Amino acid sequence: MILRERRCISPIWQLARLESPGQTPAAADWMPAAVPGAVQLDWAAAHGLPDVNHGRNVALYDGLEDSHWLYRTAMPAITRAPGARIFLTTAGLDFEAEVRIAGRPVRRHRGLQTPMEIEVTELAAGTPVEILFFPAPKRHPQPADRTQASHVTKPAMSYGWDWHPRLIPLGLCHETEFEVRPATSIADVDFHYELTDDLGAAAIEVAVRSDPPGAAWTWRLRDAAGTEVLAGTGTASARLERPRLWWTHDHGEPHRYTLEVALAGGETVRRHVGLRRVRLVMYPGAWDEHIPMPASRNHPPFTLELNGRRIFAKGTNWVAPDLFPGRITGETYRPLLRLAQETHFNLLRCWGGAAAPREEFFDQCDELGLLVWQEFPLACNLYPDTQDYLRLLDTESRAMIRRIRPHPCLALWSGGNELFNAWSRMTDQSLPLRLLNRNCYDLDPATPFIPTSPLGGVGHGDYRFLHEGRDIFHLFQGARGTAYTEFGCPGASPAEYLREFIPADELWPARPGTSWETHHGLRAWEADETTWLCLNAMEELFGPLGSLEDTVAKSEWLQGEGYKAVYEEARRQQPRCAMALNWCFNEPWPTAANNSLVNWPARPKPALAAVRAACRPVLASARIPRFQWRLGERFACELWLLNDTAAAWPGGVVRAELLVAGRRELLGEWAFDAVPPQGALPGPTVGAALPAATAAREFVLELTAGPRAAWSSRYRLSLRG
Amino acid sequence: MILRERRCISPIWQLARLESPGQTPAAADWMPAAVPGAVQLDWAAAHGLPDVNHGRNVALYDGLEDSHWLYRTAMPAITRAPGARIFLTTAGLDFEAEVRIAGRPVRRHRGLQTPMEIEVTELAAGTPVEILFFPAPKRHPQPADRTQASHVTKPAMSYGWDWHPRLIPLGLCHETEFEVRPATSIADVDFHYELTDDLGAAAIEVAVRSDPPGAAWTWRLRDAAGTEVLAGTGTASARLERPRLWWTHDHGEPHRYTLEVALAGGETVRRHVGLRRVRLVMYPGAWDEHIPMPASRNHPPFTLELNGRRIFAKGTNWVAPDLFPGRITGETYRPLLRLAQETHFNLLRCWGGAAAPREEFFDQCDELGLLVWQEFPLACNLYPDTQDYLRLLDTESRAMIRRIRPHPCLALWSGGNELFNAWSRMTDQSLPLRLLNRNCYDLDPATPFIPTSPLGGVGHGDYRFLHEGRDIFHLFQGARGTAYTEFGCPGASPAEYLREFIPADELWPARPGTSWETHHGLRAWEADETTWLCLNAMEELFGPLGSLEDTVAKSEWLQGEGYKAVYEEARRQQPRCAMALNWCFNEPWPTAANNSLVNWPARPKPALAAVRAACRPVLASARIPRFQWRLGERFACELWLLNDTAAAWPGGVVRAELLVAGRRELLGEWAFDAVPPQGALPGPTVGAALPAATAAREFVLELTAGPRAAWSSRYRLSLRG
Repeated sequence: MILRERRCISPIWQLARLESPGQTPAAADWMPAAVPGAVQLDWAAAHGLPDVNHGRNVALYDGLEDSHWLYRTAMPAITRAPGARIFLTTAGLDFEAEVRIAGRPVRRHRGLQTPMEIEVTELAAGTPVEILFFPAPKRHPQPADRTQASHVTKPAMSYGWDWHPRLIPLGLCHETEFEVRPATSIADVDFHYELTDDLGAAAIEVAVRSDPPGAAWTWRLRDAAGTEVLAGTGTASARLERPRLWWTHDHGEPHRYTLEVALAGGETVRRHVGLRRVRLVMYPGAWDEHIPMPASRNHPPFTLELNGRRIFAKGTNWVAPDLFPGRITGETYRPLLRLAQETHFNLLRCWGGAAAPREEFFDQCDELGLLVWQEFPLACNLYPDTQDYLRLLDTESRAMIRRIRPHPCLALWSGGNELFNAWSRMTDQSLPLRLLNRNCYDLDPATPFIPTSPLGGVGHGDYRFLHEGRDIFHLFQGARGTAYTEFGCPGASPAEYLREFIPADELWPARPGTSWETHHGLRAWEADETTWLCLNAMEELFGPLGSLEDTVAKSEWLQGEGYKAVYEEARRQQPRCAMALNWCFNEPWPTAANNSLVNWPARPKPALAAVRAACRPVLASARIPRFQWRLGERFACELWLLNDTAAAWPGGVVRAELLVAGRRELLGEWAFDAVPPQGALPGPTVGAALPAATAAREFVLELTAGPRAAWSSRYRLSLRG
Repeated sequence: MILRERRCISPIWQLARLESPGQTPAAADWMPAAVPGAVQLDWAAAHGLPDVNHGRNVALYDGLEDSHWLYRTAMPAITRAPGARIFLTTAGLDFEAEVRIAGRPVRRHRGLQTPMEIEVTELAAGTPVEILFFPAPKRHPQPADRTQASHVTKPAMSYGWDWHPRLIPLGLCHETEFEVRPATSIADVDFHYELTDDLGAAAIEVAVRSDPPGAAWTWRLRDAAGTEVLAGTGTASARLERPRLWWTHDHGEPHRYTLEVALAGGETVRRHVGLRRVRLVMYPGAWDEHIPMPASRNHPPFTLELNGRRIFAKGTNWVAPDLFPGRITGETYRPLLRLAQETHFNLLRCWGGAAAPREEFFDQCDELGLLVWQEFPLACNLYPDTQDYLRLLDTESRAMIRRIRPHPCLALWSGGNELFNAWSRMTDQSLPLRLLNRNCYDLDPATPFIPTSPLGGVGHGDYRFLHEGRDIFHLFQGARGTAYTEFGCPGASPAEYLREFIPADELWPARPGTSWETHHGLRAWEADETTWLCLNAMEELFGPLGSLEDTVAKSEWLQGEGYKAVYEEARRQQPRCAMALNWCFNEPWPTAANNSLVNWPARPKPALAAVRAACRPVLASARIPRFQWRLGERFACELWLLNDTAAAWPGGVVRAELLVAGRRELLGEWAFDAVPPQGALPGPTVGAALPAATAAREFVLELTAGPRAAWSSRYRLSLRG
């Protein structure tokens, strides 16, 4: 984010719902408007609609997006220095709007990602300034689902998803204010650097677009301690020796420099910058693999390399943290991103069904050392080759790239979500994706670009603990992906959380048609009517379920052990596999059950602790063939050591024990000489018979690592009569 | 090609070989230069070097590319109309050169694909005009192979390939002449059209770049009969109702219009244009295929759709028809392209190891109804992300796209050959390929673009009749490709042809170190020392070989039946498979053995007739498990009908018979009701025991189609004791 010291006047906005675009609202039609916000929120406040997050209230918000809405304010009286100018500015509008000044249309705009500014320096104080919002775009004759957004850059999730209600925000979702600029101002700062091959030096260039153009500038770079390390004038390249690189938190320090730019006779701005080199490379040994005749291609690269080091990407899919983008602030992100970092995640995929996050998100990821995979706003739709759509996408994507590219956290651009799958039917020939490649190449060629995920060799899914009769342990042990960029294991939300938004009379048993369904506990995913609570899977594993608390506990158990199994298995499949991102991290509102790890707004589910355990930089791990075992059956598992650090670790012992019904049985001990850096070290298979008779319906596999107890692991498994 | 009526003066050129770039040649150093041509050809003529195509003479040409060479001429005396201007022009230079006028450097140029023009209007007659050629680029410290060309756009094949000797041409490979232009001239004509979805109309725009800029223009369009069908002025769009579309010869008429453009007060030009829509689409049913979890993507599309009709692409890989690009004319292409059309081919892949063909090639393909897949000059190398290479590739590729895009025959742009395979190690992230995608999107978005071949689902190889103990029949019946865009089956050249360039004392037996090796009969392909004559495979199948004639006959037999088996199998695999292109069609010089179907310059090998039979629009076909059978063994095959036309055909009967040792045995009759359009109709499996004892060592499977005898097919198979 560029930090400026400009005076901004946030005016008082009012809002009216119109019967028709040309209608002049009566005085009584006007209601107060919160900006940033959404027309739905203002309407709800003015008309006493109950909290959208509670029960089935969301239905009361349905259809508000089909009206025209008019915001109004008046030009404030602003004193200004000689030559200073005033602009009405916003970072984007949701979604299509017309700006009117003194009743005359002056600008038409589409898109949340594209900034808008209109000079109003000469406007008399009190002049009416209005912004007319058109109804939310809905492609016809599509059904009431995401396909209605398949011709625009409006986030598709708002049209309904298996964890997002159908609620389509509209309105001023960003600060929309009057900004006073000095006579000579900085319109844009472009920080460009090129690291030498050995990363030992960086050639740095700073380009400034001034308004009016042509002003000279100087710049300096300070390190995190505030010490000036480099300075320059104009576009001349300057060389920084031994730069401190930006690393993810788990591989080093996310070091940031501060760039200060001063315009001759004008303003001064600052921004954080970081130096890093990120690439998508082939996994070690990929080129040596035998490809049978007729020979096809190798899989596309999906291993992240940061500053020359191949890293295993452990992370998650980030979704919108609120139904209304206008309600999201830096403080919305902060606790969530802190949790992601504490979970040992180093990569967040900002999924294309949601809007790209605000600047605060990227600033915090820069600071916390979290890489970001940013998608363009395309998801699960066939976006067309039409000129109208291509023009919109061109404008919006260029604005996104220019805004996000200076952040060192940026790891990867992606065209969008699952666009090459049958439910989308886009292909490598689709012009929107070729356009995005073009724009990324033109504006940010040093950052990798992929047209979509999954690509060949990459896996999405499954999203349930049981799939076609096999559990998630088994499924992933049979997979051979280069990356698992979406995989899900649903869990019910904690009972005390459910009580906050599910009315008492709907709470148990969970039934379709109640808040359980509204909040995605049932009938959420088309492929499986019982998602996401998945009562069927739990009954298959455990028999009839008891209370709400019992059901939630079993669901949490499955979610925790399921996710742990996948993260660890993906790491065991190194170096072919280089990435594990679960679907999904967070959620935009309270769900009753979901694949998420953190409930809205930032309340960790128990599974998060299990994932944190599975993502420790170094740990003892067991490849366990399946979650559920029968009495008397022989249990066996492979022992492994997983090390995602660049360090080799000295040898030690892993002791594997079974804990069944209070008894502890030694399976075996594995003495290893050393743990090699960045990889998976296989050990022996150990096993023993489970007791033939016991009342216990679960058991624990415990791996005790010595001398490093922090590497020890536990797995809680199911025992069946 | 733009047809202009401009006066062009081809000067007399002379050439000198320099010891150093600054050397002034002595009078005796100058030799006559043929332009277009190559320094090697002029040197050979001046110094009496023998024919490069004969015996092992090519070795005598080695190293000439490492010198500096200087061309010279003098500004001719040219009378011109008032305002007319004179330019020194060429379509490209091979490869890096400096133009000097009156001894002063005025231009530096790289590349065969990038035109150059220098205004010389005011130059006094007699002024020296020189072009200094630098030594051929050779990346260091690479070995003497194609990798020396991995940093430039010079065709990689010249550096040595398994069918191309190491011979690296240099010099003026295009007409380089003085052109007189009227005071107001047409610099470029851009013909743009957009067909309506139903192809019932076309919106046509003609843009003209005039010199000096800004002149007005009119244009008209005439159909093939010369009737004017549309006219326009300036850039205004005009609508052509019911346009006659351009089709491949096998699906319709390759209809071309003539565009005439007249500049106000300036010149008039004409060019052929054609209207067609070409797409790469998914095969029917692709989106319905089950993809197991974790789900990856569908294969990229590889089915060609022409004017809304899915077509099966039968074709071949086109390589350079001469070692020296400067020796190639329209007459070089004509007999070859006629043969391709007669073979029922509808698609030629212009492979990236060679230079893109001249305008005459595309004009003839337009006229003959042959689609062209054009690659950029990258092949089997790791082309780097460096700024120097990216700049060169940018310039060369833009020139290629602008030149070739107006041709209706253009079906597909491709980044180059096998760039995603282990021997190249480029990936989807490679900046050269992202640049090419960008340039194609910017300049020709309506034509499909692929980064390379093969892509996922597409197969290249194998290139031998026997591969890992299996024959080519078997190999392809087990394959599941969406397209086979390279497959080879080598054949010896005919004995009388071999006698033309292999000295009599080397002719038989074929031995390494002789002209057999120089001309790729032995030790040509690194993976297999006996390629391409493949004596080992023939001995494995037939036992010890006899005379040259006997060996050639057996090799021709394998090549013909092998190629027939692959083309027919690919067609049987419709609609999943949509393309079959053998490696390769032609050759740049006489080879002793090669995968080619036509010997240099345009002499069909016997296998061409076999391929022609396999590529008939409709035919009865047999899926024969393998080529060689044993006495007494039961022979069985599946019967099929293959139809690449858009028409359904009435029913009939296929009668399958074996002809062994003069006896004819009925295997079965298949009465089919109708042949559906565009696809493969499976019939019954038929079989019979082969005789337990006979002296015959071959037999024939004959499919007699009634009532359409033209659909009948024959297969000549091997019988072993």
